[in-house]
Amino acid sequence: MKILAIDTSSQAASTALWEDGALLGEEYIRVKLTHSQTSLPMVQTLLQHTQTSLEEVDLLAVSVGPGSFTGLRIGIAAVKGIAYALGKPCGAISTLECLAHNFLGVDTLVCAVMDARCKQVYTALFRSVGGRLQRLSEDAAIPLQELQERLSQYQEPIFLVGDGAQLCYDAYGSSMPHLRLAPEHLRYQHAAGLCTAAWEAFQQGRVCSAQELAPIYLRLPQAERERMARMKQNTEESKP
Amino acid sequence: MKILAIDTSSQAASTALWEDGALLGEEYIRVKLTHSQTSLPMVQTLLQHTQTSLEEVDLLAVSVGPGSFTGLRIGIAAVKGIAYALGKPCGAISTLECLAHNFLGVDTLVCAVMDARCKQVYTALFRSVGGRLQRLSEDAAIPLQELQERLSQYQEPIFLVGDGAQLCYDAYGSSMPHLRLAPEHLRYQHAAGLCTAAWEAFQQGRVCSAQELAPIYLRLPQAERERMARMKQNTEESKP
Repeated sequence: MKILAIDTSSQAASTALWEDGALLGEEYIRVKLTHSQTSLPMVQTLLQHTQTSLEEVDLLAVSVGPGSFTGLRIGIAAVKGIAYALGKPCGAISTLECLAHNFLGVDTLVCAVMDARCKQVYTALFRSVGGRLQRLSEDAAIPLQELQERLSQYQEPIFLVGDGAQLCYDAYGSSMPHLRLAPEHLRYQHAAGLCTAAWEAFQQGRVCSAQELAPIYLRLPQAERERMARMKQNTEESKP
Repeated sequence: MKILAIDTSSQAASTALWEDGALLGEEYIRVKLTHSQTSLPMVQTLLQHTQTSLEEVDLLAVSVGPGSFTGLRIGIAAVKGIAYALGKPCGAISTLECLAHNFLGVDTLVCAVMDARCKQVYTALFRSVGGRLQRLSEDAAIPLQELQERLSQYQEPIFLVGDGAQLCYDAYGSSMPHLRLAPEHLRYQHAAGLCTAAWEAFQQGRVCSAQELAPIYLRLPQAERERMARMKQNTEESKP
């Protein structure tokens, strides 16, 4: 079974091709470019360099959030389009789970953290053990401070992964010696992780159609938050 | 400082671009294709997708062996050409050291093993600790059996990386429970590891010119081994 994965959930963007447990190829980019410019050309060159045709792909995988609102929409739209055109199923993978997959095969606790701005983080905790990932907490948007309280319950080493890892490490790494900042090459999301996560999802029957694929933002987009704040203010102002 | 790296030392081939501690991009392929077809197109698309010009690159990095004789020559020839044309220095990196860099940032013993055929392996042992790699043994071509004796001196977990990892694990993994097979995404050489190794080499003044760049095979190529065997036989036959 061949899986093609696309991740555009944050500044890093990547695409990977996987077949029956083997990573056939991956392209990973982390530069300041819009993903709309890079994602499809990356897929195209990956297929070209591995001499694979799109028709050979059995399952599409994509990060569905949390993450950058625009980034997520670009990746999901691309995968939706490809899956719809080919009539293939999709694996909708949590970005935080994708991040934790960087430590698959290394027995350790892994805390995936993404910067949600305003001193908030998107986070989930996993235990990587025996070549599998155990989820210890659900994806959540919580204050940076609350994450510290959660992590202080553990004494063993915890690797921080994601674009919020440095933020956490700077905030309380010095007072929590069991925290480890993931090394650069394992810090950010890689589409290879989407492939292994999607393979697991497929085996458990957790796949969806192109039409069903949707982002999971965890928080409302800024524009909607502002609109709701305005509406609330208007309601209060119009009170007698 | 920008580093461009190319690895074509085995079935996996990859290219990476690195700047001041950050991995800007990497393309990795592991399919049955000749590297002469894939390596330069991979460099070209990596530069294109990161919007980087070749002139911006300050240092070239390449795996110089051990590894596939033809593979090594392709990577080294490409890097020689680029470095000569641009007048830039080169980091000549051991393939085994490149492999061990997959575990940089994860405190553990790492044994890099490449299949040298005829029940021989190319191998070197490293300790990854505190974000650095300590070399515990020199690159060597030894019998598979001898590696088992070396590894049995340790009780702590040892990750096996490289295209000989499975070979070793199958041969004596069951009798040595401290051996760990590196997970698929960390098993084979990645050019990202060449970048970090070359950066270290650069800081220590261990760089060379395009002209000085040369492969380190550890063993003579098969054709030369056969020629020497023939010469030896001829000498013996001509004895009175």
